[in-house]
Amino acid sequence: MDLTIPRLGQAKIPSPLRFSTTLGDLVANYVPDSARILYDISLDANCCLAGHDAELPLSFEKAGPREKIYFDPSKLRVGMVTCGGLCPGINTVIRTLVIELSERYGVHRITGFRYGFAGLEPKHGHPVLELDPEMVDDIHHDGGSILGTSRGPQDVGVMVDTLERMGICLFFVIGGDGTLRGAQAIYEEITRRGLKIAVIDIPKTIDNDVLLVEQTFGFETAVSIAIEAIRSAHTEAKSTENGVGLVRLMGRHSGYIAASAALAEPDVNLVLIPEIPFKLEGRDGVFEWLQARLHQSGHAVIVVAEGAGQDLLQDAESSLERDASGNVKLADIGLFLRDAIDRALQDRGVHHSLKYIDPSYLIRSAPADPNDSLFASNLARSAMHAGMSGRTGMLVGLWHATFTHVPIQEATVARKVIDPEGDLWRSVLECTGQPPLFGL
Amino acid sequence: MDLTIPRLGQAKIPSPLRFSTTLGDLVANYVPDSARILYDISLDANCCLAGHDAELPLSFEKAGPREKIYFDPSKLRVGMVTCGGLCPGINTVIRTLVIELSERYGVHRITGFRYGFAGLEPKHGHPVLELDPEMVDDIHHDGGSILGTSRGPQDVGVMVDTLERMGICLFFVIGGDGTLRGAQAIYEEITRRGLKIAVIDIPKTIDNDVLLVEQTFGFETAVSIAIEAIRSAHTEAKSTENGVGLVRLMGRHSGYIAASAALAEPDVNLVLIPEIPFKLEGRDGVFEWLQARLHQSGHAVIVVAEGAGQDLLQDAESSLERDASGNVKLADIGLFLRDAIDRALQDRGVHHSLKYIDPSYLIRSAPADPNDSLFASNLARSAMHAGMSGRTGMLVGLWHATFTHVPIQEATVARKVIDPEGDLWRSVLECTGQPPLFGL
Amino acid sequence: MDLTIPRLGQAKIPSPLRFSTTLGDLVANYVPDSARILYDISLDANCCLAGHDAELPLSFEKAGPREKIYFDPSKLRVGMVTCGGLCPGINTVIRTLVIELSERYGVHRITGFRYGFAGLEPKHGHPVLELDPEMVDDIHHDGGSILGTSRGPQDVGVMVDTLERMGICLFFVIGGDGTLRGAQAIYEEITRRGLKIAVIDIPKTIDNDVLLVEQTFGFETAVSIAIEAIRSAHTEAKSTENGVGLVRLMGRHSGYIAASAALAEPDVNLVLIPEIPFKLEGRDGVFEWLQARLHQSGHAVIVVAEGAGQDLLQDAESSLERDASGNVKLADIGLFLRDAIDRALQDRGVHHSLKYIDPSYLIRSAPADPNDSLFASNLARSAMHAGMSGRTGMLVGLWHATFTHVPIQEATVARKVIDPEGDLWRSVLECTGQPPLFGL
Amino acid sequence: MDLTIPRLGQAKIPSPLRFSTTLGDLVANYVPDSARILYDISLDANCCLAGHDAELPLSFEKAGPREKIYFDPSKLRVGMVTCGGLCPGINTVIRTLVIELSERYGVHRITGFRYGFAGLEPKHGHPVLELDPEMVDDIHHDGGSILGTSRGPQDVGVMVDTLERMGICLFFVIGGDGTLRGAQAIYEEITRRGLKIAVIDIPKTIDNDVLLVEQTFGFETAVSIAIEAIRSAHTEAKSTENGVGLVRLMGRHSGYIAASAALAEPDVNLVLIPEIPFKLEGRDGVFEWLQARLHQSGHAVIVVAEGAGQDLLQDAESSLERDASGNVKLADIGLFLRDAIDRALQDRGVHHSLKYIDPSYLIRSAPADPNDSLFASNLARSAMHAGMSGRTGMLVGLWHATFTHVPIQEATVARKVIDPEGDLWRSVLECTGQPPLFGL
Repeated sequence: MDLTIPRLGQAKIPSPLRFSTTLGDLVANYVPDSARILYDISLDANCCLAGHDAELPLSFEKAGPREKIYFDPSKLRVGMVTCGGLCPGINTVIRTLVIELSERYGVHRITGFRYGFAGLEPKHGHPVLELDPEMVDDIHHDGGSILGTSRGPQDVGVMVDTLERMGICLFFVIGGDGTLRGAQAIYEEITRRGLKIAVIDIPKTIDNDVLLVEQTFGFETAVSIAIEAIRSAHTEAKSTENGVGLVRLMGRHSGYIAASAALAEPDVNLVLIPEIPFKLEGRDGVFEWLQARLHQSGHAVIVVAEGAGQDLLQDAESSLERDASGNVKLADIGLFLRDAIDRALQDRGVHHSLKYIDPSYLIRSAPADPNDSLFASNLARSAMHAGMSGRTGMLVGLWHATFTHVPIQEATVARKVIDPEGDLWRSVLECTGQPPLFGL
Repeated sequence: MDLTIPRLGQAKIPSPLRFSTTLGDLVANYVPDSARILYDISLDANCCLAGHDAELPLSFEKAGPREKIYFDPSKLRVGMVTCGGLCPGINTVIRTLVIELSERYGVHRITGFRYGFAGLEPKHGHPVLELDPEMVDDIHHDGGSILGTSRGPQDVGVMVDTLERMGICLFFVIGGDGTLRGAQAIYEEITRRGLKIAVIDIPKTIDNDVLLVEQTFGFETAVSIAIEAIRSAHTEAKSTENGVGLVRLMGRHSGYIAASAALAEPDVNLVLIPEIPFKLEGRDGVFEWLQARLHQSGHAVIVVAEGAGQDLLQDAESSLERDASGNVKLADIGLFLRDAIDRALQDRGVHHSLKYIDPSYLIRSAPADPNDSLFASNLARSAMHAGMSGRTGMLVGLWHATFTHVPIQEATVARKVIDPEGDLWRSVLECTGQPPLFGL
Repeated sequence: MDLTIPRLGQAKIPSPLRFSTTLGDLVANYVPDSARILYDISLDANCCLAGHDAELPLSFEKAGPREKIYFDPSKLRVGMVTCGGLCPGINTVIRTLVIELSERYGVHRITGFRYGFAGLEPKHGHPVLELDPEMVDDIHHDGGSILGTSRGPQDVGVMVDTLERMGICLFFVIGGDGTLRGAQAIYEEITRRGLKIAVIDIPKTIDNDVLLVEQTFGFETAVSIAIEAIRSAHTEAKSTENGVGLVRLMGRHSGYIAASAALAEPDVNLVLIPEIPFKLEGRDGVFEWLQARLHQSGHAVIVVAEGAGQDLLQDAESSLERDASGNVKLADIGLFLRDAIDRALQDRGVHHSLKYIDPSYLIRSAPADPNDSLFASNLARSAMHAGMSGRTGMLVGLWHATFTHVPIQEATVARKVIDPEGDLWRSVLECTGQPPLFGL
Repeated sequence: MDLTIPRLGQAKIPSPLRFSTTLGDLVANYVPDSARILYDISLDANCCLAGHDAELPLSFEKAGPREKIYFDPSKLRVGMVTCGGLCPGINTVIRTLVIELSERYGVHRITGFRYGFAGLEPKHGHPVLELDPEMVDDIHHDGGSILGTSRGPQDVGVMVDTLERMGICLFFVIGGDGTLRGAQAIYEEITRRGLKIAVIDIPKTIDNDVLLVEQTFGFETAVSIAIEAIRSAHTEAKSTENGVGLVRLMGRHSGYIAASAALAEPDVNLVLIPEIPFKLEGRDGVFEWLQARLHQSGHAVIVVAEGAGQDLLQDAESSLERDASGNVKLADIGLFLRDAIDRALQDRGVHHSLKYIDPSYLIRSAPADPNDSLFASNLARSAMHAGMSGRTGMLVGLWHATFTHVPIQEATVARKVIDPEGDLWRSVLECTGQPPLFGL
């Protein structure tokens, strides 16, 4: 197969796009003509090591059913728990685990802990839920989690006591971020005690910010609902003179939802994310840009991720330190920007109308859209196979569109963030036409 | 980074799943424990060739904006055409090309040909449409193609005459299958004449069956709408004694829509696709399976891709050769199965009720869903950059979740089909619980 | 209050609209200037009869909770059954009856019969379902009927035996058309036996064709989904030269869905309904109109109710009498028109493309939209109050936007049909611009 | 026709429902057995007056096309303007007016004023938009108003000058509330000057609070979107221990959206509306009810209309008078209740989690749903016919499901509000099970 691309001739004209060839300047980069993508990304660990005497390149174990399994299905008791905020697709994960463990592997004792890790702490007194296929048959059409959820850690020793006492040997944890660290602590305590209990995490984070995982379930649904808010903001903005629509989207440390929503609904003119700092005031600040945009087009739509511009908030907060309840509200970049833009445009004498939309809870509680259902179901299936094969201390991931096994330890080293010089952010710049940097 | 996964011990118990370790038996395979996925799939052609003196591994050129471009935007005239059946996202592709060619590159002469390749044939008399950003600003919310479309080839020489006469130097073709072959013929004729006209295809096929392209735009939206039909079929089936819901989905040569829809809406009990032949009659045929399923569960939902079971239709047709108009209808596997199942259940004395749903046109004409919009827009952007850099005879693709350049010639060698032993189909077997083979 | 409308002067110019002032010519009528609508439509039967010594004008009993009830909730056993085809909102009716009978009235024995009237026939052996609030809490989000349904009558004596034997004293029948006649027969048999069993019908007909009932539940949802089919047909039609989109909608005897969908999605150019016969051939036939429309606008969207043009089908069928299975298919006006239009346009040398859409099962099985949920829930509540007060032999209706009690006997005299000279059909003519009559 | 309803016997048992038979106690009333609804609500003014020598009962003029019109279509110039907040369906109204005035009546000069009444004030310098059918053909799929809108009055004399100068003789005003008063003022000024300019209002108020108008367009769509917020609140509430979902809906003076949404999505446990005052504290206050509800069911969903409980806010505000910016926020009953409930539950030691959702802008900017499209289109059509016939100083309304003409003067006397003792609110009490009054 010859994958060479014909060319009309040598490209000699400098591109009018404003990208960079320098790494580290926070400006999205051009793609070099020599950049290529491997055709075959699969490896066989045996061949590599044996045949070539070479070191195995950095690679993930591939997910999927193994010919031999570790646990005897007829004797196995499985446990599962959902932690942290709601996210579309949790019920699909629960459903797939319960139905396929039961109907494919023949596991008949499946226990759900209620209300997150708190469900493993006897002192909270949450009774467990024994799960079977009939009980979960229709739950994928509803948002939320039939197990309930809660935030925050619990005593690791007590939780492992509970698993041990109940005879649970395969424990699925559905959660991201703090939950992943909790799962790792449980795994380590289990190892310390020398128990044969497998711990498998299915990463759940609506922000899509788990390291070594290309995409998490619920993310795409979140983007779908976010764009309804963007459409509303756009409709409102266009309906008045100098209308400004401001949409606050989720994304504490990573701007994936904001960036993807802006690409999916190209009426967005400006995206602000945590990964790229920005200035509001001054010649090359956001306010100046906004005034110019209104002057030229008569309206503007701005999307801001909740974690963007935290430095600006700190300044504002410190000057208002005395008002305790006020501080909490100011820490919200959406409300802060809403007021700051209003004031800035007033100061500049721009008669305008600003509409502010925050669709967060509408997003978190939605049922999974079809593609997320498919994805969550495949992810749960991969987790099930990994657990049945005796793997532990891992989460299931997606890498180059393939399901993989990832050690929890490596995934909790940091959060995944958008590369300001990479493909995704460059597309956002191209789509919105916004300047790569504001005053930095 | 250490990507080794901890294990509780050696897996020794044979898996109860019914997969295979043999290639070529059409039964989905287990994943070997040694299977791994490369962490880094990017290559630099320069380094590889220069540094290592080794052969460049099989790889695609990566898509994206280049630092140097080939065409002078101020003098360039761009043309575009949409061919074949409707597909969600066509208008998003047109919109992105027009707006970003104009606003990012500064190309101001962009011409749309009407009604497919016929629009390049003067004899049909379709006037062209001069496109500008304002004209296309809102079109992405509507299904269809603002340029219109048509099927079938036109005279290649005449089409190249038109491009030459109109001074079009960058020509975007939105279409798949036959259209790709048309684009290749145009590219070859251009090369023969020594013209400097770039031909870039943006693959459009609702069946997702273009070789060397992981996913095509519109596919995901198609799956979303398909599952509404599946839900309806399931609701109808459950509402009566021995209810059978039969849904016919698109997929002439590849069962991607049927397989993905069944994974996304797990109420499906049986998926029939073109890639895997099946028997209806006999001990291990579909009818026997259906009767057992009804006996056990009281209802069943079957999804059939339009290209499945063509061998069965040929038998049926030849025996009914005399009835001209009847033949046409029998060539439809959906209607054929509907009648065949009805008859088979009657013959077996199973009192039942069958509801048949064919949502094809509802799918093709839908607007793109948010993820497809994002995808179509990125694809169009990649095509634009490829064209501006002087590349030609290529289509833009997706490979391991990265946008790539693919020579049209290689993509038209065959159609992409589902691997009966691969990950996707294995997931379908796991999800539906259906037997891997019917009577073969 | 003075409800006189100011006028600029006397209207003297003949209207250019093509309506009629003649009753009986099947052409929609103008509204006379003297036509008025009563402000107050409520009556008090006592006052009327006592105070005025005048006859009570024709009026319905108003629905709603009474101060005194007939049945003792603590001893009452309630039964319910759903019959006929699926319709959006059935589960909402069941849910409201069960929850409010239980939680508001304190009725704790509520029995659901499975699979329609067949569930009251012991020979079918369908076990009953004892219903309680928890069981029905989430069912309103799903289409279909949790009780299941079936078509066709059963032995009235046997059904009343079942009610009597089970001690059911309040029996809710959810169904229209044939079901209403069944409910009436049950009511008469109960009366004949002198039993104290109340029979209350909640009219369910997706066609909205129950006499003396302004609107039935599910109808609005049906229209909503129908217009998705119309949008698809319009998108397809516009995408090709002389594209024709043909949508077949439900409506055996009444064209309400077709008429309302055309008003809601004004891309429809022609609506054909059972109430108004039409000619296809000839100077003022449908084909001539279609050719002119294509010539002028390049595309056309036609909506046909399933019961329209039955006279045309009879002609066609009689000439093909020999082909038994073929006849069934020809009786479908949608497929008949599809083929007839194709042929007619071909005969006239009009190069065209026709797309045919029949969304019937997608409509019947959908969950109720919000307004239908509200409506179905109010209707069920009205039925509950009527039953608890000891009323019987009635159905709950809507009249001038108010819930009413209607004797089943009066509602089964005929089917409700669209008045070709009334407000609804006149609006359709105005919206589509179609001629009032085709060749009659 | 005999509309008598059979009864099993006399109802003697007092109903366990907690309704009232007393008018004026703010508790919903039972329906007396003698309450009836007129079968025929149409009147002929001529007959009544002439034939019977009796006074014409209070009645509305019926809407619809007249045989004779007042304006000569070929010479007429029509104007239209949209005022106030966005509302689903505005574009449908504009589209129907433009297309049908043009294609049915032959009016070819139709002018749209931009940005509300400000568009009639030369000093704002907004150019007008000349409208034709092609321009408005697709606008009904988008929310907002293609004309733009603004709030607030303008100088009446200047506006009439503009109409006179431009030769506009038929002026459609799309707006409610303040806009209606503006339209009345314009009508009066026109009358004072003796001009022959008709002024017709099409009432637009998302709150559905126009007197003498049963329902306004956009209301139903608003309810549809509101229930998505309710579902989210319910999902969130159920997912945690003692979860409380609080949804703030529109409704400054009338609780129609809140009441209807609660009826359509019966997961709501408490509805608070402007029409019925309530106490938070004390034995029979909302907090006590909420604590009991959480104790019993573990979660609660509360819907509050924006105008509810204004007396509570005034108390709160006056005590906090010093904090200027704080006051603005406290005037929002949603945020006030959110904080007040949080505090009250904390004070009572109830560990809980409260999620607050305010979907207002998502609702206002949505496109009309199918039933609203149908309704808005019929309303616009009725307005068109009224205007063409020379009527003026009126708005088009709906009364007992029939389109009517209403003098603006009578409609602006007050706002329409929910009758706490009427059918709608009684249904809400039945559906939620909430107490009729909190501490009054």
